[in-house]
Amino acid sequence: MSKNTTINDMIERRSVKKYKPDMVPKNIIEEIVKAGTYAATGRGLQSPIIVAVTDKAVRDRLSKANGAIMGTPDGYDPFYGAPVVLVVLADKNCNTYVYDGSLVMGNLMLAAHSLGIGSCWIHRAKEEFAMPEWKEWLASLGIEGEYEGIGHCILGYADYAKGEEPVAKDRKKDYVRFVE
Amino acid sequence: MSKNTTINDMIERRSVKKYKPDMVPKNIIEEIVKAGTYAATGRGLQSPIIVAVTDKAVRDRLSKANGAIMGTPDGYDPFYGAPVVLVVLADKNCNTYVYDGSLVMGNLMLAAHSLGIGSCWIHRAKEEFAMPEWKEWLASLGIEGEYEGIGHCILGYADYAKGEEPVAKDRKKDYVRFVE
Repeated sequence: MSKNTTINDMIERRSVKKYKPDMVPKNIIEEIVKAGTYAATGRGLQSPIIVAVTDKAVRDRLSKANGAIMGTPDGYDPFYGAPVVLVVLADKNCNTYVYDGSLVMGNLMLAAHSLGIGSCWIHRAKEEFAMPEWKEWLASLGIEGEYEGIGHCILGYADYAKGEEPVAKDRKKDYVRFVE
Repeated sequence: MSKNTTINDMIERRSVKKYKPDMVPKNIIEEIVKAGTYAATGRGLQSPIIVAVTDKAVRDRLSKANGAIMGTPDGYDPFYGAPVVLVVLADKNCNTYVYDGSLVMGNLMLAAHSLGIGSCWIHRAKEEFAMPEWKEWLASLGIEGEYEGIGHCILGYADYAKGEEPVAKDRKKDYVRFVE
């Protein structure tokens, strides 16, 4: 336990894999997203973008596409019932784009936790946004250019019963070496 | 300005590019590094490792190798005088390794800021740790296996004169879209 609030949030944040259907208020989503935009980026070029999806029909289509890439049975929801999906993509023309987009994802997840909102990084955004259907969807939002999917940060209220909450695994042996 | 300490830290953190030579106390480095180990990783596999370098000779050799990759003149210090270099590497056998290592870097930089320590992501770790010389160095620390360099998180005390501190650029237009 650190005396530092920010570090405590890092240590206590867990990936949430069970959500209530309740929508997160818009002002909270906006605060989380704003935190995401302040992630460091290579040469300060701000290569990522964030598409914040709360529209249920779009969220469900994304879920279906994601499950299909994973090869899960029809009806399985890779977003664990979360009502909000923050899609992070980044501009491939910037050579730090994967690192940049990942830092945005990190800020989103941690900001969510700090506000009492559950989150989880859901992968396969790269494969998804390589598909013509989803490139067209981006274009319909006015997003042109070579954006690669970095991740989906799902958001919502955790729906764990008492005692069912995820617990941090021990950190692995030899995670850290000191050369002093 | 957010009322939330963690989000404020995200918004106020800047990349520091001018450092005093003063060493950061070990207990502070340990707290920052611990925060790094709690970053989310794909399937919780903890694919990254952190090598915390405070040994000046090693730090200077790393700086020289980094500058050589960048092509800067001899004597230029890509680490901006920072006395501490936290090298993050990640196991290429884990398919989320670049994302995982980036999240560790994000936690390190934010944890540092929250403790009043300046930091900056210095790239070219990928190229560095692909070199036989640095692979051997890892091996000498007992680190075997296919680790790719993700980044150097340099740490130290900022050495800006009053008014010289970096200011956040405006976030780009269209960083965020809402689909609601």
